[in-house]
Amino acid sequence: MKKPDITSLRITDSEFKTRIRKIQKALGAKKLDGLLVFASEAEPANVRYLADYWPSFETTGVLVPAEGKPCLLIGPESLTFARARSRIPDIRRLMDFRESSQPEYPGSKLTAWKDLLGEFRIKRLGITGMAMLPYPIWNNIVAVLGKENVVPEETIVPNMRIIKSAGELALMRQASKISETGLAAALKAARPGMSEIELAAEAEYAMLKAGAETTGYPVWCCSGPNSNQAISRPTHRRFKKGELIQLCVGARLEGYSSSIGRVFALGNISGELRKFVTAGLEAEKRTIEIMRAGRTGAEITKHVHDFIRLQGYGECILYGPAHGVGLMECEFPFIESALQMKLAENMTFNIDIFLYTPRYGLRIEDGVIIRKDGVECMSGIRREVIVI
Amino acid sequence: MKKPDITSLRITDSEFKTRIRKIQKALGAKKLDGLLVFASEAEPANVRYLADYWPSFETTGVLVPAEGKPCLLIGPESLTFARARSRIPDIRRLMDFRESSQPEYPGSKLTAWKDLLGEFRIKRLGITGMAMLPYPIWNNIVAVLGKENVVPEETIVPNMRIIKSAGELALMRQASKISETGLAAALKAARPGMSEIELAAEAEYAMLKAGAETTGYPVWCCSGPNSNQAISRPTHRRFKKGELIQLCVGARLEGYSSSIGRVFALGNISGELRKFVTAGLEAEKRTIEIMRAGRTGAEITKHVHDFIRLQGYGECILYGPAHGVGLMECEFPFIESALQMKLAENMTFNIDIFLYTPRYGLRIEDGVIIRKDGVECMSGIRREVIVI
Repeated sequence: MKKPDITSLRITDSEFKTRIRKIQKALGAKKLDGLLVFASEAEPANVRYLADYWPSFETTGVLVPAEGKPCLLIGPESLTFARARSRIPDIRRLMDFRESSQPEYPGSKLTAWKDLLGEFRIKRLGITGMAMLPYPIWNNIVAVLGKENVVPEETIVPNMRIIKSAGELALMRQASKISETGLAAALKAARPGMSEIELAAEAEYAMLKAGAETTGYPVWCCSGPNSNQAISRPTHRRFKKGELIQLCVGARLEGYSSSIGRVFALGNISGELRKFVTAGLEAEKRTIEIMRAGRTGAEITKHVHDFIRLQGYGECILYGPAHGVGLMECEFPFIESALQMKLAENMTFNIDIFLYTPRYGLRIEDGVIIRKDGVECMSGIRREVIVI
Repeated sequence: MKKPDITSLRITDSEFKTRIRKIQKALGAKKLDGLLVFASEAEPANVRYLADYWPSFETTGVLVPAEGKPCLLIGPESLTFARARSRIPDIRRLMDFRESSQPEYPGSKLTAWKDLLGEFRIKRLGITGMAMLPYPIWNNIVAVLGKENVVPEETIVPNMRIIKSAGELALMRQASKISETGLAAALKAARPGMSEIELAAEAEYAMLKAGAETTGYPVWCCSGPNSNQAISRPTHRRFKKGELIQLCVGARLEGYSSSIGRVFALGNISGELRKFVTAGLEAEKRTIEIMRAGRTGAEITKHVHDFIRLQGYGECILYGPAHGVGLMECEFPFIESALQMKLAENMTFNIDIFLYTPRYGLRIEDGVIIRKDGVECMSGIRREVIVI
């Protein structure tokens, strides 16, 4: 495939500024003087959304005051890195964002929470990303502001992220195309005797060469008895003929993730496995057919899970048939039996049919954009029983 | 190179059991009923040390009671994955260890902290990994045990990890050899016009093909003005002739990380840059010469930093000349001016000479094992001014 022109696809500075302004408008209504958005190396989405910065080794945050300009918070070692990447020019270094191994940096001049919160006149602070926020950071902020003035704020940013802009959708479509390249390269290379890690390496290499900035999550390939893993990492196990091999690949482009999941077999496939894979593929087809603006997560889940149960695979279900996708490969909202939220245009989901038994499993996954009358599929390569 | 026989190199079950017993012995002396060791996807070291498990998407923990058998704590989706990997057979699923995007899992049967801590008769709990522990987990445990009975315990496990066993050293030597393969492949592929991401992809692909389970950290390559980044991620920037290109690659094998850092230039190199790189190489050489059992971190740092200052690059120093390496690519202890600890045999370090200016920078990095009379270098490929 032709490599994308990354420069033309980047989210504009103006879109980043609009995101900050929207948060500031919401903060006023909530009587908060500011919002601290926390993120880690493994889950950088909210900070990437506001600053385009993604840490390595260290953690990070964005402090958005109710009025005025935001600042990016980083650890002691990332200043030149952050300056080259951040869309927020004001960058402060805090000891609390250092590596988890806790180097000491004798002599370094770092910012203290008391000075930072004082300078931004913050007395009452909302926190986004509380599920990841380390206890010591919470404790250090509470020591300055008091416990009653530090409150979780998990609605403003996540709700902003649900509906994607034209710029975000363009990146996500391109990321999906790159994932298709990775999947195709891996299927082309697959042979009996090859290891899970070796196959994952083929997919990742192809995606990086095709323009991905990295993978959206650690690519996995799990074979035979490992194929029943809902989350996995590839091992040195070598493929055998006739077993199911689960392959999940996802390219990340300018922060936006994609994912394609397929199962395949080498050489041959038994009737039992063919029936199982066919049911998974049909469940994905039915999910694609029913998703559209106006439908609730509960309606969609019932429709798809009823079908799976009718096929005799009810015991193989672990979770709902789709989840949000964007800066996180798996993000809010989750299509589950409990979700009463109605889908709306320009929401993006990964359809994610995962079925498992004690001996084998499958995942069929593809990204979709919600439209008025249905969905736009961002990927669709080899939706079939794949025997190589 | 010949691929390592991974099976023969794996840390034995017996060594894993010994680690648990050592912790239990230390817990008794500290009047703790148990230890919760917390770890994340980005920093899994302490849990990998005890259970050989490394999460993806979710977080994890190990609960070690003062007496009896430990259990591995995981999130709702990782049961089949953890069963295939964990050296600790008792595995419990808790909602607190789910993905940070917080899926709901309606109908799932998960373990509650109250039941778990009650079953293991824990009234007073130490916590290792507090710097990463999310506030909500701390809060949920405190709700069961009371604030006075939940205490940080950051000495037992980190101190056990400093001195490496024969099995650990064998893995680290092999990981370093694989990193050399990755570095060589990248230098062979480097061309003007190639992007940082493309070069990093070459290194990673070569390491995975040579037996790495993954990289020890996200490989980076930062060129020209980006080369002054102490921590980095590769971008789509394309190489130009005559600029410095910093390349840091590290293979991970059975959890154990390695890292090799080099700078190189394409086509030519100015006198100014050659002098800078030569000083960095000489600083590494002097670090290798002075490191040995019995020397303190402060002595080593003074010796190396005095040399760097004498060369006129004192302003280019960000941190000490070496850091611990093992299950984390950068772990305790840190060779810094403040470190009075004496080095001992079978400690492992990465010598890490990082120097930066406003316009360019370098890193020269190699792993060493501390010996009575010096060090054993685990890598040493192309310690020279590299012009391709």
